[in-house]
Amino acid sequence: MVKESGTKISKPTLVVDTEKFINNITRFKSKLDDATIIRPHFKTHDNVSAGKIIREKTGIDKITVSSFDMAKKFAESGYSDITIAFPFNILEADEIFILADKVKLNICVSNFESAVFLKDFSTSKNIYIYIEIDTGYNRSGILWNDLEQLSKVLKIIDSCGYLKFVGFLTHNGSTYKKNSISEIKKSTEITNSKLIELKEFFSDYNPIISIGDTPGVITMTDFSGIDEVRPGNFVYFDLMQLNLGVCSVEDISALVYCPVVDINYDRNQVVIYGGAVHFSKEHVFYKGLNVYGKVLAIKDKMEIKSDSYLISLSQEHGIVDFSADDIKNIRIGDILVIIPVHSCLTANLLSNNTVFI
Amino acid sequence: MVKESGTKISKPTLVVDTEKFINNITRFKSKLDDATIIRPHFKTHDNVSAGKIIREKTGIDKITVSSFDMAKKFAESGYSDITIAFPFNILEADEIFILADKVKLNICVSNFESAVFLKDFSTSKNIYIYIEIDTGYNRSGILWNDLEQLSKVLKIIDSCGYLKFVGFLTHNGSTYKKNSISEIKKSTEITNSKLIELKEFFSDYNPIISIGDTPGVITMTDFSGIDEVRPGNFVYFDLMQLNLGVCSVEDISALVYCPVVDINYDRNQVVIYGGAVHFSKEHVFYKGLNVYGKVLAIKDKMEIKSDSYLISLSQEHGIVDFSADDIKNIRIGDILVIIPVHSCLTANLLSNNTVFI
Repeated sequence: MVKESGTKISKPTLVVDTEKFINNITRFKSKLDDATIIRPHFKTHDNVSAGKIIREKTGIDKITVSSFDMAKKFAESGYSDITIAFPFNILEADEIFILADKVKLNICVSNFESAVFLKDFSTSKNIYIYIEIDTGYNRSGILWNDLEQLSKVLKIIDSCGYLKFVGFLTHNGSTYKKNSISEIKKSTEITNSKLIELKEFFSDYNPIISIGDTPGVITMTDFSGIDEVRPGNFVYFDLMQLNLGVCSVEDISALVYCPVVDINYDRNQVVIYGGAVHFSKEHVFYKGLNVYGKVLAIKDKMEIKSDSYLISLSQEHGIVDFSADDIKNIRIGDILVIIPVHSCLTANLLSNNTVFI
Repeated sequence: MVKESGTKISKPTLVVDTEKFINNITRFKSKLDDATIIRPHFKTHDNVSAGKIIREKTGIDKITVSSFDMAKKFAESGYSDITIAFPFNILEADEIFILADKVKLNICVSNFESAVFLKDFSTSKNIYIYIEIDTGYNRSGILWNDLEQLSKVLKIIDSCGYLKFVGFLTHNGSTYKKNSISEIKKSTEITNSKLIELKEFFSDYNPIISIGDTPGVITMTDFSGIDEVRPGNFVYFDLMQLNLGVCSVEDISALVYCPVVDINYDRNQVVIYGGAVHFSKEHVFYKGLNVYGKVLAIKDKMEIKSDSYLISLSQEHGIVDFSADDIKNIRIGDILVIIPVHSCLTANLLSNNTVFI
């Protein structure tokens, strides 16, 4: 099940199975018809090599990022239609407009003040504007039912020649906290219907609607009315998505390989070189414990039989609990193959130590 | 109270007050007499500029790191006596011995298997060996009372010409989970007495003893019998150390500056550019909530009056809860000055965006 890397591993390494990685994208893409475009969120891999593979193997040329720095990086690597799905940061305005002169740059206006700032900025460079809608996740954006505020913002954008309105964008992160696929689907349907209502209400502006969040988007079957989808995590998946039921273990394309540096047979515990600076401290719950990863296999040796979790992380150390049976097979210098809890954070931390096999 | 940075801040930035940073070191160093050397753990800042400042301002020339990569980096920056306080990773042995030829490199043997590996490695290069002792923290190392195992490991090291035994090293991380200074002190005393017993028992080998953990070491007043101390976090401190009572808010030398990108006056919440990829998801508890940072001030404007915490982190977004009074003063484009929960992880994440003022 676990494809082996030809690369010599001597420290914590994110190993990406390129075939699974591409299959995750093409499988999802095949569900969409021409009315819905995919603009994957590159924050998950945040990796120029991954970006090149995606462009070459899937033909995708429109992407989403979560910061100006990421936009700049992928623009330099050849992407020319980029959405920064993060509230417009007025302190980066100068640099953002410089980049907007080189590529088609789409930014998010999440409040009235930012719209006013953009109108007053005065430039000859075109920039494309999504209005960020809060459909109930309560993070950022204008509330979907605050029609007065939305009208004011739309009028400002419309009055300003270099601000090109695109549509309404949301990230319904609520799906990450649901307990079943049916709950995820219900939350997605509610979000989508709110956006479709807005699209109709403001039809004079001809908005598109754009939705994010991997759990919601990946489990959707009916995309009617949805112009754009921005899943991110679905390229790698992880333990969180596995627990949500959104993917199978075979779909997970990015695994962390960690050397075993100490073993305690009395406690049935293994110490790995692999800590918070590699996995992040994102956790899920397993039998009332916080866990930071799940062990799948010992590289080149065997799969792990019992559920074995990374139960503790220091900066560079990780502790894995094993069954008495499994630990018997583990030796100092072995490499454990581990599903990370949240691949977006792990990929960021291991950005200088990622291999594609 | 918050010294301002002359540097233009437009994205999440770790701002280090160099004076406080150096004072934290010199204040602690003045507590030690010649019998106890300080070998600070550089994993906290993991920053070559910080390392240079420390060498120039304090004269410290012996350091601790937590990975081979970190050892290599600081060796290249001019440090020539480096301890890797992490179980020896046999998969990096070749590179470790190459470095051991260039600088005085001290490594940790945490188990019998690693000692055997080192004996069989066969090299002409000298390497210095600590035996890692587990005094009850139950992470890595040989149990302090497993005299049989310790004797076996010592004999192997002693029999091998290029392995130069230094002493016993421990990290009593238990202190991070204590609820008062007296509990921290008690835990440290127990650890120290175990090590001092070992030192006496194995006096034929002339071991030094070396202890780590900032809470324990910083609150110690009697260093008799302790040959070496390796605090790390004490250069920056953070919210965790503040909550433990180990430092005052004025001692915290590293703060995270984050732009305000969205404000919701109904929920009294501010969205900052500053998320899990900047702060890490390490948290402490405040009124039953997980919190990821505490807001001290709005840069160039005012200090925050009520307790205001970072209550939620996505990849790049952070949400801060404010009092109705404080939020009135905050505008889009302001910069919040925030105490991170765990400066070691935050400094690692912001390594490319750290300024010393």
